[in-house]
Amino acid sequence: MPTDQVQLYDTTLRDGSQMEGISLSVEDKIRITKKLDELGFEWIEGGFPGSNPKDAEYFRRLREVKLRHAKVSAFGGTRKPNTTCEADANIQSMVAADTPGVTLVGKASLYQVTDILETTPEENLAMIADTVRYFKQLGKTVFFDAEHFFDGFYGDPDYSLQCLVTAARAGADALVLCDTNGGMTTRSMLRALEAVQQRVKDVRLGIHLHNDAGLAVANSLHAVEAGVWQVQGCVNGYGERCGNADILTIAANLKLKYGIDVLEDEQLARLTEVANYVAELANMALNPQTPYVGAAAFAHKAGYHVAGIIKDEKAYQHVDPALVGNRSRVLVSELSGQRNLVMKLKEAGLDFLSQDEIKRLLELVKEREAQGYQYEGAEASFEMLVRRSLPGYRPPFELEDFVIVERRRVRKGDGGNEMLAEAMVKLTINGETIHTAHEGNGPVNALDGAVRKALNPLFPQLEQVKLVDYKVRILDSQSATGARVRVLIESTDGTRHWTTVGSSTDIIEASWLALADALEYALTTEG
Amino acid sequence: MPTDQVQLYDTTLRDGSQMEGISLSVEDKIRITKKLDELGFEWIEGGFPGSNPKDAEYFRRLREVKLRHAKVSAFGGTRKPNTTCEADANIQSMVAADTPGVTLVGKASLYQVTDILETTPEENLAMIADTVRYFKQLGKTVFFDAEHFFDGFYGDPDYSLQCLVTAARAGADALVLCDTNGGMTTRSMLRALEAVQQRVKDVRLGIHLHNDAGLAVANSLHAVEAGVWQVQGCVNGYGERCGNADILTIAANLKLKYGIDVLEDEQLARLTEVANYVAELANMALNPQTPYVGAAAFAHKAGYHVAGIIKDEKAYQHVDPALVGNRSRVLVSELSGQRNLVMKLKEAGLDFLSQDEIKRLLELVKEREAQGYQYEGAEASFEMLVRRSLPGYRPPFELEDFVIVERRRVRKGDGGNEMLAEAMVKLTINGETIHTAHEGNGPVNALDGAVRKALNPLFPQLEQVKLVDYKVRILDSQSATGARVRVLIESTDGTRHWTTVGSSTDIIEASWLALADALEYALTTEG
Repeated sequence: MPTDQVQLYDTTLRDGSQMEGISLSVEDKIRITKKLDELGFEWIEGGFPGSNPKDAEYFRRLREVKLRHAKVSAFGGTRKPNTTCEADANIQSMVAADTPGVTLVGKASLYQVTDILETTPEENLAMIADTVRYFKQLGKTVFFDAEHFFDGFYGDPDYSLQCLVTAARAGADALVLCDTNGGMTTRSMLRALEAVQQRVKDVRLGIHLHNDAGLAVANSLHAVEAGVWQVQGCVNGYGERCGNADILTIAANLKLKYGIDVLEDEQLARLTEVANYVAELANMALNPQTPYVGAAAFAHKAGYHVAGIIKDEKAYQHVDPALVGNRSRVLVSELSGQRNLVMKLKEAGLDFLSQDEIKRLLELVKEREAQGYQYEGAEASFEMLVRRSLPGYRPPFELEDFVIVERRRVRKGDGGNEMLAEAMVKLTINGETIHTAHEGNGPVNALDGAVRKALNPLFPQLEQVKLVDYKVRILDSQSATGARVRVLIESTDGTRHWTTVGSSTDIIEASWLALADALEYALTTEG
Repeated sequence: MPTDQVQLYDTTLRDGSQMEGISLSVEDKIRITKKLDELGFEWIEGGFPGSNPKDAEYFRRLREVKLRHAKVSAFGGTRKPNTTCEADANIQSMVAADTPGVTLVGKASLYQVTDILETTPEENLAMIADTVRYFKQLGKTVFFDAEHFFDGFYGDPDYSLQCLVTAARAGADALVLCDTNGGMTTRSMLRALEAVQQRVKDVRLGIHLHNDAGLAVANSLHAVEAGVWQVQGCVNGYGERCGNADILTIAANLKLKYGIDVLEDEQLARLTEVANYVAELANMALNPQTPYVGAAAFAHKAGYHVAGIIKDEKAYQHVDPALVGNRSRVLVSELSGQRNLVMKLKEAGLDFLSQDEIKRLLELVKEREAQGYQYEGAEASFEMLVRRSLPGYRPPFELEDFVIVERRRVRKGDGGNEMLAEAMVKLTINGETIHTAHEGNGPVNALDGAVRKALNPLFPQLEQVKLVDYKVRILDSQSATGARVRVLIESTDGTRHWTTVGSSTDIIEASWLALADALEYALTTEG
């Protein structure tokens, strides 16, 4: 059973979606809710029903969803000044959300009350008391998010503490101390926390931190050490400005470094999966450097590090990556020596090359990297490079020629646009030439369609192969549209995932090279 | 004058370049060295001359570079077991680097010595002593990087401390405690540090932390509070796995939160510039969430946050962004209300729209966002959207038609490839039709060339306009090559920078839309 010492409270769906570039659909939000429930979080803040119709729709749809562990809370402010909870549309939208809990954000800073909210200190206290009491009478769990608590405490400590006392007396189940602007040092945070603990007893405390000084994870852990119960954060540290505290990093640290069982072992082993799943739905590339769950979190590049982990994996790893569902990787690059290459070949089951062949391969890798290739993230292209360098390798198909024609013009009459993209390809397969053509909704799509049209009759297994990601990177931005580009394509056949790379000044050629590697890899390696 | 209480030591060029995806040329390294010197760091670790010829070349070229503040150190290991410094090629490459300082990495962990280095504890101590003494006799400043010190301390504390004492007795100028695997909690780090301070007196201490538990910045600050003198880190937190401690975040925190003048005010005001400069040369997009320097570090999206900062900028900002050379921004998105739009219009000098016009504009933004546009990072396209919606707007040019032809084929004879990309465009400028064509090294480059060929005679100011970055994002990766793509183009005329966006299933059309916005923006707004 997970501990009651610390409770994880996720606000990815509310505070996390305040991040630049994140826009979750209702369906995305439902899927993320289910995933976080599976992971084992106790509370999920689902949204801010008063702020937008999408969140209201989410709460309607949520009623048909059966969750195993988690309870969902609706977020919103205390009632507006000089009105009642019954007459406040925002409060009523939270009632309509029909959740077991609500999270009420109220100002806990004198400056914010007088200068930003523009009401009196007394009215703000009444707003807190009324709203907490209103939702407690409805039988809900009420979390009071004390907005701007820490900055407020260093402006007028007594007023900020009074806000907390008011919420506690009105029946709040926990008082959540927010570093809304994210700038607290550890020392300042702990000093204010101590003052709270002296003034408010018998109510549980929570912490909600932002990362503007790069300290959100660290300060959350310090707060737990100091006795705080609820820790709020977002998956992958999403959130406005520099983000909220990364709840996955906190969970892993609490479990593996502090021995606090906030998740069970099997749940922790899904951490990397959850990070990637949420990143995928949020349409944000997961930062490879993310602690525990990033693609580079256990990746080794320096030659002498690789030499070490050949002897013992833990030589350069702080925890076993399997505990969080991640894995270690060895990177191939000019900084690395033959040892990395040897490890890499072993991973690909190609560890039978002679010393001379390995030496030539290392030269080839360096030469390709100088042309803009990068094999660190494109293991399948690396494997194809090796296979093609082996004596006796016969490619399953060869390109002779492709032509792309693309046109965009203004339609006569309505002023709309007409687009056309066509590709013609000529391939050789087993000595036979196949010449075909295909239309697409863009040049790479047309090319992909034409190549598959040529290959599919002979290689029906390619129908299972789908491209799942396509990235373009400009390598030499000073050259603007004439710059060299690197294209990365991620493919899957339903069970395996692989990434291939192509580089050229021409985005279509670079795409072709990555696409050809992806298809050739599917045809020459076993599933 | 900067303080002597804390010294900033940068290892971006050595440990930072161990990061996946980073590959710096000698020229890049020289440029970064000069930039970090301007910023005011005291020591710059230039490279590992024994590990690769590029770093050796860097140190040769560095002799012709005049630095104002910074001193450069060469990094390398203590001598190999059972040899002499004179006979050790790696040591001699550090001598050849001819720098005022060297940073010697030596094992400070019994497990690492016996199991990974595979030598005796006594020989490891001799290696440390010999190498430190050797470089001190050459008159160099010697920093001893105690690799794996913290993990070693928790395995066999006495041996780890003995390594430090040995380096100190041999004359090391500072003992740098390394959390090589990056997993230390604050409490464990501080406990080990205290043991060091009791055992080793009269030698300065340094700290070198990795971010595997998300605590590198926080623990570096704790180490400074505990009396450590030298703080090592990397720009933007680059480095192997989860990266090194972010030296820019540390510098800003020390200066603004701890009142320690590690940089002068004018130097601190260049922090954002330096972060972006290094990211550009490292060819890594700077994480917008990076504390202090990221593009989103002071960006406001939530409607009620924006309402707050309209009243007072500091309502949702922990420091004034100008102190670190950054600026605040308001984001336009579906989560935000009219207030964000109004702020945005004010930023662009377009704050004369009526309530009805603003309402229609908000609808238009939401519609475009549903099509894959995103104006949060593309202020110039947003401005063009507004200008085009104004009555009486006349575009400086209009596209009627373009055709792209592109061919790739295997050359007869040598088996190499032939590439051809051509664009034909038809534009209307002041009622006159211009029809022209251009070749390029790729389709977008050909299109750019043809459009400029048509526009340049009439608008010679476009010759100053250059594209400096080009990004492609797949919006719906399940659709593979048929997916909708978003293209972001960053342009400059030498003084201003602006970003435009285009979205389509066709990468060339999306590029065209972003390119057209970029050129139209240059022609319709003042420099």
